[in-house]
Amino acid sequence: MNENDVLIIKTLLKELDETVDDGYGPFLAAIYDENYNLISKAKNSVVKSNLSLAHAEINTIKLAEEKLNSYDLSKYNLSIYVTSEPCIMCLGAIMWAGIKKIFYSAPSDSVEKITGFYEGYKPNWIVEFEKRGIKVFPDIEKDEGEKVLLKYVKSGGVIYKPEN
Amino acid sequence: MNENDVLIIKTLLKELDETVDDGYGPFLAAIYDENYNLISKAKNSVVKSNLSLAHAEINTIKLAEEKLNSYDLSKYNLSIYVTSEPCIMCLGAIMWAGIKKIFYSAPSDSVEKITGFYEGYKPNWIVEFEKRGIKVFPDIEKDEGEKVLLKYVKSGGVIYKPEN
Repeated sequence: MNENDVLIIKTLLKELDETVDDGYGPFLAAIYDENYNLISKAKNSVVKSNLSLAHAEINTIKLAEEKLNSYDLSKYNLSIYVTSEPCIMCLGAIMWAGIKKIFYSAPSDSVEKITGFYEGYKPNWIVEFEKRGIKVFPDIEKDEGEKVLLKYVKSGGVIYKPEN
Repeated sequence: MNENDVLIIKTLLKELDETVDDGYGPFLAAIYDENYNLISKAKNSVVKSNLSLAHAEINTIKLAEEKLNSYDLSKYNLSIYVTSEPCIMCLGAIMWAGIKKIFYSAPSDSVEKITGFYEGYKPNWIVEFEKRGIKVFPDIEKDEGEKVLLKYVKSGGVIYKPEN
């Protein structure tokens, strides 16, 4: 991890903070190539799109695959940057897409505590991903990551969660 | 589980078997309500759609949410039937969608052994899902489920998998 990676996370957190009450979910993801060219960027649009699958990571991967015209991004050496730790669905999506590095700010513990979203059961996933050659950089600017989630909750943002 | 559930799995396996060389991936999913009305049905279209996210379960959930116009299907008491055990991404997607029961044929072990697809790290997921009120019915007509995967491989079907 270098200063560019931190800068990308900071910039995503700032953009999310400034737009936290725009009707999107409080999560923003971006995919960059190894030369720090932006490939795609998207927010969580579950409520706006009326689709539970529309997490920030899913939307961003879809845009990247459309742009690069491939269901296998592994040849491009891409990194995904997210304002919070990916949930179980998005971890699987990142694996299938062939993304090589994951950078994120607020961990799932914080997401669950602050917002009430349930992130899924994924014990030791960082170790498991490293075994598969996917590098993970957690908790970057964690305080800022938590702050923006709290701002979303305080602004009355929707917490979507299927009832048991 | 009753005879209707088994019949649905059998019918999906038959349809998959008859169409296994049509360019779609060798996985078929369907969502039914508690009165056994079909809500949606879809195959894996990763290669056709050029999108790594387009697993059978993801496609089927998307169709169901569009049809029912909601990102939270929990109020409909729906079940998803799949010809193979869902991968880690699809398990997360099923959880987020609020689907209540999961029925499947071939287990992930068989999928990995027969096809070479990697299904992701999801230890004890059935126990974890049951804790959250999602019931899981594994290995229904398992032999048939494995047979159709083998037929796909023998027919020269694409095994998509990002390179490490």
